[in-house]
Amino acid sequence: MSLAREMLGASPVASDLDADAVAAAIDACLTSQQSCVSCANSDLAEHDVAEMARCIALCTSCADVCAVTMRDLSRRFATNRRVTHHLLRACVLTCTDCAEECERHAAHHPHCALCEKACRACVEACQALLDAEAFAQLEKLAGG
Amino acid sequence: MSLAREMLGASPVASDLDADAVAAAIDACLTSQQSCVSCANSDLAEHDVAEMARCIALCTSCADVCAVTMRDLSRRFATNRRVTHHLLRACVLTCTDCAEECERHAAHHPHCALCEKACRACVEACQALLDAEAFAQLEKLAGG
Amino acid sequence: MSLAREMLGASPVASDLDADAVAAAIDACLTSQQSCVSCANSDLAEHDVAEMARCIALCTSCADVCAVTMRDLSRRFATNRRVTHHLLRACVLTCTDCAEECERHAAHHPHCALCEKACRACVEACQALLDAEAFAQLEKLAGG
Amino acid sequence: MSLAREMLGASPVASDLDADAVAAAIDACLTSQQSCVSCANSDLAEHDVAEMARCIALCTSCADVCAVTMRDLSRRFATNRRVTHHLLRACVLTCTDCAEECERHAAHHPHCALCEKACRACVEACQALLDAEAFAQLEKLAGG
Repeated sequence: MSLAREMLGASPVASDLDADAVAAAIDACLTSQQSCVSCANSDLAEHDVAEMARCIALCTSCADVCAVTMRDLSRRFATNRRVTHHLLRACVLTCTDCAEECERHAAHHPHCALCEKACRACVEACQALLDAEAFAQLEKLAGG
Repeated sequence: MSLAREMLGASPVASDLDADAVAAAIDACLTSQQSCVSCANSDLAEHDVAEMARCIALCTSCADVCAVTMRDLSRRFATNRRVTHHLLRACVLTCTDCAEECERHAAHHPHCALCEKACRACVEACQALLDAEAFAQLEKLAGG
Repeated sequence: MSLAREMLGASPVASDLDADAVAAAIDACLTSQQSCVSCANSDLAEHDVAEMARCIALCTSCADVCAVTMRDLSRRFATNRRVTHHLLRACVLTCTDCAEECERHAAHHPHCALCEKACRACVEACQALLDAEAFAQLEKLAGG
Repeated sequence: MSLAREMLGASPVASDLDADAVAAAIDACLTSQQSCVSCANSDLAEHDVAEMARCIALCTSCADVCAVTMRDLSRRFATNRRVTHHLLRACVLTCTDCAEECERHAAHHPHCALCEKACRACVEACQALLDAEAFAQLEKLAGG
């Protein structure tokens, strides 16, 4: 069991969200945040840095969105389900953008291959949360 | 003219978003982020800290959402309009929650009165952006 | 091998810092950041929240310092060894403060017991880096 | 009076640090963080992006250090003077690196000229704090 899962289990606040699914999304956001910070920095030192501009920008943005999503999911007290919904949606979108761009460079830059994988795992974990009953009404409104 | 406005004007990337409105939202997010970090910390030192629990939690979350929204709005290259939309929406929601809670304590805690004002200004600046033509389609989809 | 370790291995920039030790510190910072965000939020929902004020403040600060230290350690290109040194030192200090406070509540709040453990692991991983030859000169100057 | 200064004045916790100097550093960190996020993004869209790699990396790191320093300075309750010292030192170092790199591009990239100015103002405001009596002992130890 990851520490994130244990921390959720130790919270005095109950939640209708599945703790395993939330913990999986937290862990995926942590991993994706780190790989994006590292990938953006590695891109800057590559000989073909000019080709990597979009990758650097997307990785940098993605790291920021993953960080705030991780923080929101780690909290249960005084949270706002609609805020969580928007952050999860933003996270899925930015991780998807980032994964698609990293994929274009994966063959020649191993850090892009690794980062693509981390971003896709984060999309999957956040989307799994969004597919939960607790978000059904908000997803319907959002035309998701 | 604020530095945020000057920085947008110096970007090599054009945008259909009004630069004055974006800069106003950036500046409001900066101010709100700072007041929320400070308010949460001051709450913790008040004699009635037990009554302030919700205020501390909301200020802490609000600071994080304002921070990421400010970063997203400060970028023009390789951004995703739908991500910006979700972050602005999350920012309006969390700043509203935070302002309403701070208002309840504004009479006896001057830091809450100041923080309420900063959060309401952030709601207004972010909502003004959301009301722009550029977000009309996304707002309609979101039932905004 | 953790993803952080793989990402360091994929960087085009060489480093005289031991990649295993850096990756261990990155992973410890990620874990500690998350446990601190979660612990502060859980504290706020406890019946004895007034006794937890210092724990909430320290966890909140610690999460921020762990986050920036993790980001700095994830980069190799255009980094400043003295900046890294200061961040590692700040991280050791704030994680120590946080662990000691969490320890006081560990018997009755399981989230504090978990968070204490994560913070102590982060102290150990960051201190191990500071003990490396690469920081010897800076540590001597700092009277470390 | 800036809001940061008003927030410090509204804190229930006294401090031996001069509130005007702390507020000036907070405001400088906010401004520098924003200009660095914006400058890094603008760099990525410039035709000479390959020449800007170091500027992008330094701006990105600088934004993160300014953000955490601003947060630390905004708190008075349960803070650690030695942590604040390390963060201020890291902030002075990274803002100096960033300003020097931006200066190299200031003639042809207006965003670099603006960012250089913001980073130098942040160096000055943070150094003014470090020169205060409250940090004298820590500065002597650090060989500052």
